Amino acid sequence: MPADPARPQPAQLNPVLPPVPDIVRSAYATLVVTDLAEARRFWVDLLGFVVTAEEPAALYLRGYDELTHHNLILRAGPVAAAGALGFRVRSPLDLDRAVDYYKALGCRTQRLPAGAVRGLGEIVRAEDPLGFLVDLFASAEHPERLQQRYDLRRGAEVARLDHFNICVPDVPRAYDYYAGLGFGLSETIEDERCVYAAWMYRKQTVHDVAFTGGAGPRLHHLGFFAHEAHSVLRMCDILGSLSLEAHIERGPGRHGVSNAFYVYLRDPDGHRMEIYTSDYYTGDPDHPVLRWSVLDPRRRDFWGNAVIPSWYSDASAVLDLDGAVRPVTDLAQAAEVTVGADGFTAKNPAAPQQGPQQAPR
Amino acid sequence: MPADPARPQPAQLNPVLPPVPDIVRSAYATLVVTDLAEARRFWVDLLGFVVTAEEPAALYLRGYDELTHHNLILRAGPVAAAGALGFRVRSPLDLDRAVDYYKALGCRTQRLPAGAVRGLGEIVRAEDPLGFLVDLFASAEHPERLQQRYDLRRGAEVARLDHFNICVPDVPRAYDYYAGLGFGLSETIEDERCVYAAWMYRKQTVHDVAFTGGAGPRLHHLGFFAHEAHSVLRMCDILGSLSLEAHIERGPGRHGVSNAFYVYLRDPDGHRMEIYTSDYYTGDPDHPVLRWSVLDPRRRDFWGNAVIPSWYSDASAVLDLDGAVRPVTDLAQAAEVTVGADGFTAKNPAAPQQGPQQAPR
Amino acid sequence: MPADPARPQPAQLNPVLPPVPDIVRSAYATLVVTDLAEARRFWVDLLGFVVTAEEPAALYLRGYDELTHHNLILRAGPVAAAGALGFRVRSPLDLDRAVDYYKALGCRTQRLPAGAVRGLGEIVRAEDPLGFLVDLFASAEHPERLQQRYDLRRGAEVARLDHFNICVPDVPRAYDYYAGLGFGLSETIEDERCVYAAWMYRKQTVHDVAFTGGAGPRLHHLGFFAHEAHSVLRMCDILGSLSLEAHIERGPGRHGVSNAFYVYLRDPDGHRMEIYTSDYYTGDPDHPVLRWSVLDPRRRDFWGNAVIPSWYSDASAVLDLDGAVRPVTDLAQAAEVTVGADGFTAKNPAAPQQGPQQAPR
Amino acid sequence: MPADPARPQPAQLNPVLPPVPDIVRSAYATLVVTDLAEARRFWVDLLGFVVTAEEPAALYLRGYDELTHHNLILRAGPVAAAGALGFRVRSPLDLDRAVDYYKALGCRTQRLPAGAVRGLGEIVRAEDPLGFLVDLFASAEHPERLQQRYDLRRGAEVARLDHFNICVPDVPRAYDYYAGLGFGLSETIEDERCVYAAWMYRKQTVHDVAFTGGAGPRLHHLGFFAHEAHSVLRMCDILGSLSLEAHIERGPGRHGVSNAFYVYLRDPDGHRMEIYTSDYYTGDPDHPVLRWSVLDPRRRDFWGNAVIPSWYSDASAVLDLDGAVRPVTDLAQAAEVTVGADGFTAKNPAAPQQGPQQAPR
Repeated sequence: MPADPARPQPAQLNPVLPPVPDIVRSAYATLVVTDLAEARRFWVDLLGFVVTAEEPAALYLRGYDELTHHNLILRAGPVAAAGALGFRVRSPLDLDRAVDYYKALGCRTQRLPAGAVRGLGEIVRAEDPLGFLVDLFASAEHPERLQQRYDLRRGAEVARLDHFNICVPDVPRAYDYYAGLGFGLSETIEDERCVYAAWMYRKQTVHDVAFTGGAGPRLHHLGFFAHEAHSVLRMCDILGSLSLEAHIERGPGRHGVSNAFYVYLRDPDGHRMEIYTSDYYTGDPDHPVLRWSVLDPRRRDFWGNAVIPSWYSDASAVLDLDGAVRPVTDLAQAAEVTVGADGFTAKNPAAPQQGPQQAPR
Repeated sequence: MPADPARPQPAQLNPVLPPVPDIVRSAYATLVVTDLAEARRFWVDLLGFVVTAEEPAALYLRGYDELTHHNLILRAGPVAAAGALGFRVRSPLDLDRAVDYYKALGCRTQRLPAGAVRGLGEIVRAEDPLGFLVDLFASAEHPERLQQRYDLRRGAEVARLDHFNICVPDVPRAYDYYAGLGFGLSETIEDERCVYAAWMYRKQTVHDVAFTGGAGPRLHHLGFFAHEAHSVLRMCDILGSLSLEAHIERGPGRHGVSNAFYVYLRDPDGHRMEIYTSDYYTGDPDHPVLRWSVLDPRRRDFWGNAVIPSWYSDASAVLDLDGAVRPVTDLAQAAEVTVGADGFTAKNPAAPQQGPQQAPR
Repeated sequence: MPADPARPQPAQLNPVLPPVPDIVRSAYATLVVTDLAEARRFWVDLLGFVVTAEEPAALYLRGYDELTHHNLILRAGPVAAAGALGFRVRSPLDLDRAVDYYKALGCRTQRLPAGAVRGLGEIVRAEDPLGFLVDLFASAEHPERLQQRYDLRRGAEVARLDHFNICVPDVPRAYDYYAGLGFGLSETIEDERCVYAAWMYRKQTVHDVAFTGGAGPRLHHLGFFAHEAHSVLRMCDILGSLSLEAHIERGPGRHGVSNAFYVYLRDPDGHRMEIYTSDYYTGDPDHPVLRWSVLDPRRRDFWGNAVIPSWYSDASAVLDLDGAVRPVTDLAQAAEVTVGADGFTAKNPAAPQQGPQQAPR
Repeated sequence: MPADPARPQPAQLNPVLPPVPDIVRSAYATLVVTDLAEARRFWVDLLGFVVTAEEPAALYLRGYDELTHHNLILRAGPVAAAGALGFRVRSPLDLDRAVDYYKALGCRTQRLPAGAVRGLGEIVRAEDPLGFLVDLFASAEHPERLQQRYDLRRGAEVARLDHFNICVPDVPRAYDYYAGLGFGLSETIEDERCVYAAWMYRKQTVHDVAFTGGAGPRLHHLGFFAHEAHSVLRMCDILGSLSLEAHIERGPGRHGVSNAFYVYLRDPDGHRMEIYTSDYYTGDPDHPVLRWSVLDPRRRDFWGNAVIPSWYSDASAVLDLDGAVRPVTDLAQAAEVTVGADGFTAKNPAAPQQGPQQAPR
């Protein structure tokens, strides 16, 4: 059903390409942190992530609902950056398909044996066409089930990884790549000229991956699901209690896109994470796309609160297959924040718009 | 992967049978009510369901997140009963498969043209092997999207239909039938002798259908999803305000099974509905089954509160293809409530005790 | 304004009596526990009370909002019982008044020097006319303010002591005594024959003390305030996580009386405590009394859920000035639970029915 | 007890002055609105205030918990302004005291007979020394009790008026005046040079009145209490649903001062209101004052979010006894926002920096 980008089936959009791997969901991310002890304090002690495994130079973390080994690997390194974004595929067959598929796209790939990434089976690692490292895996260890261990819950009570949000200089190109992988489209921010941002899914939620137009490839944020809004508020309260409120970058607020209640935090290395609650079912084959006008001030915050400029400008560098930081390409399309969104032009319509104004706070 | 009943793929367990239709999710139910005006007061005025369409003898209702025509049809009739349980299938091809499949099972089927059920495309209606009427459909109208119309929300702020819970005299038989249709298994209540209840899914939640051992075929309840626990509390408060608290049959409470926060209400005809919040992702191909011991007092209520006897005994009659009430077969297996859980043996001290008593309270 | 019992001013109802002490609020209670380590696990580790001070045979606990030394003393002893109920008075002058007042009532009193109860100034301890030990004090130490230490909060996140609920065999007599001390009346459960229960206050909430008709003097429960309903749910979830759900005696639910959301827990010695959220302002001099009919099934639970029989029957013994357990007098008036409410008559079908049955469920 | 400003007893600080009236609490406010129909849509239809009474040119509104006639009068007039701030006093005797007291302070006063303000008994209206109109009254009608009419609740589900926040050019002078009336002090924002803001109470909450340093006399906002944080979020969601998010001026957020969860809205005339949840008990005679450094970025928002400039600059004009708009005096003391908090110095880099910068974000 190539005409319907919303249909989350492995599609074969380009007849030249081999079959696509059947991706199940976004599953984990790797963040390189410059001080693992400090990162542990943030992610484990404050935010309450569960430690599945711990090594001298790496931590394997998961949310309380996650039934596989990890949602997040924190790895010590000299430069803060994002490593591989991990996607679960349906079966080992999909790993073979992944190798063929990425090779046909001209992407470098690597096969890692089971256990090369702790807790996971064999992995196909690729530099995807957008410049991100991706890990595809078909099996994972199941640690102790903690879903109902309310006695252990702390911090934001994160349930599981929900999505990756990536900065790309060309949103339509990112869309085409992920649509080719069978991702459905749930929401966009757009105008008659272009698509500024898009949300795409394999699992039956609003997204597994979203694109924010900007210099890229960079990781904008990791989205983690929590069950109720009070968990988001509590996380902010805890940070305030410890005079660590500077970790709160944006929010809490209600997204227009996705309708989720959110807050964005920055970890000690500046990596951004979102605590994200509420969502909606997207599993119907004809799931309709919700298209937001870039002029609607509610698209990024349903309550009209201005977006912090750093939220548009900052993101994490990403690594290539050799572990080097990928060079970044500037935005190749119109920038969302110059076209009057988020109340920026509305505050001073006479002023010539040369770039994103900061909203006075 | 036929050995793993948890895998929610259309499976082909029995090589004699034709291909199974690809069921996407539980989508709607039909309830016959004896006083449509009174039912409207309950479902619409009190509970806050959205009216998509209204006819002299029928109401088409949906939750605020539902993007298709309806989750519930209330139809006026002489005897309170449950009509067809509606499942969305992936494509029109699945309708043809459904006809062949049910015929191969020896079940009566019927094809209804598009519009025969308002808002839906063509339907295959069948008397399934368990004695329930099911409607399979591949397309539906999309009414106005109300997900973010917080100004309209009232009552329990129901988001969408989540699941059907059906009373069956033989739980393993129900399991086999739904496993054959590719439903995954998320949780059970069991002991070494038998499975007393099971929860199965196609969409990536804990269930689309669950089986409660008991005289059947009967509809135990319809489960509707709400986003946060305070919506459940608010619904109870509203009923108390109006001295209609007798509609609250059981709860609120936390389920052990599914981990959801719940309340059970009875409508004016005695049809039971659940408001259900929280849930967890079940989309991984190797999603592990959670098996509860029938002796664990937390399985039905995580806080150990006793289950009201009517919750075990009462359920809605179901109709056959001719509109007649189906005769009921008594429980063919051991009953969950005779083995000492939920404090019920205490109500019948003469009954022999086959299992440990509830923890003293 | 002696004609208005709702007015929370120190009144002089009986011209023969000396001036009454100006009681500010219920402040703390003492519970004798038979295993202090086990009590610590319950109150501190599970419920999350803050430990202000610890001695080999006593723990001084407070809620996160409490700005004085303690809300609860757990004292090791051979027999589980309730010790003194502590009331804050406005000034040292009120201590002298208390001595004269209780002597005029024929009650034994004792003066304890500052520090005799850790963290408190001088105390007047009396055996009040209802048979309870009361501690009146005018000053207390202020420990570190923890109201905004969200990083420390655990368990039920109890804010402060809210009230004492006591079992008395003669509710009107208890009312008269507390009205004489200037307590206002907020709510009652009554019929044309008698008052079955009453709620009275000095601080501007629904109550500092409430009377449950029953064998007495006994302590029915200590009520602790929490800020939001989700804290109550969380406490239950934690207990379920640890298979300690048997500590949950009743609820959660919404009270008709007081409109609070509640749960009742029993500690390892059987002492009952309530986590209580929501409340309303009672500070106006003409605050109107809300009188509930004993026949209204919503009075004890606004959602009509039946009250667990143990909630009516069980309570903690209380100590006298010599540390001996007080003998108990049986209920001297009509019992609330024999008049057809809460479904309890069904449990005792031999009892004559004096009122309407519970609404059919 | 003149040495302790926190003690909320009617004090007699100045021996020259006659006895002060015994103020019980802040009770209601009058807002002059330029379009009563539009104001009704905002306050009643959107926010959900209860209409006690309605006249062609005035609306009498209350929260769901309020047991007296009104918390807010909306009165049609040619210029948006704040009319009288209403305080409940304990008894009719206090009205006589009020007349003598204000006369001794050189303030104009007026006696209004019962019913002159609908729903209230006799009123003493004064132009207080700070330039605000105040109404003191000792009795009020009690309309139908709606505390448990959850079926009626809409919008923000406001419970009652909580406080007045007023702009005054000289905060210490405002403090002295209210301390003279026996108001206790709960919290301040200050440095070694001056007090920038203060919170004072008669009822046992954080405040009945607060002072924001700025041009005055002006009404900064009316604070209304709601029971839980989700009511605040819901109100914002409703406004977003209707594209009325521009009414949300600041928040939601957690206050450092008071620890309340808040949002500030502006009505169609620009009058500011706060929905305010959580609070703490202040009724102890030695209630300790919490003093915030003006340099603490958490004082105004515990999560460090910057305060919108309009929140500091905008406020409602107030009327005098003749109905004329009072002239405004500029800030006579140091301004809170020039000393480096809230990120505002960054907006005015030419201003000398007298304190530490905001924590880098």
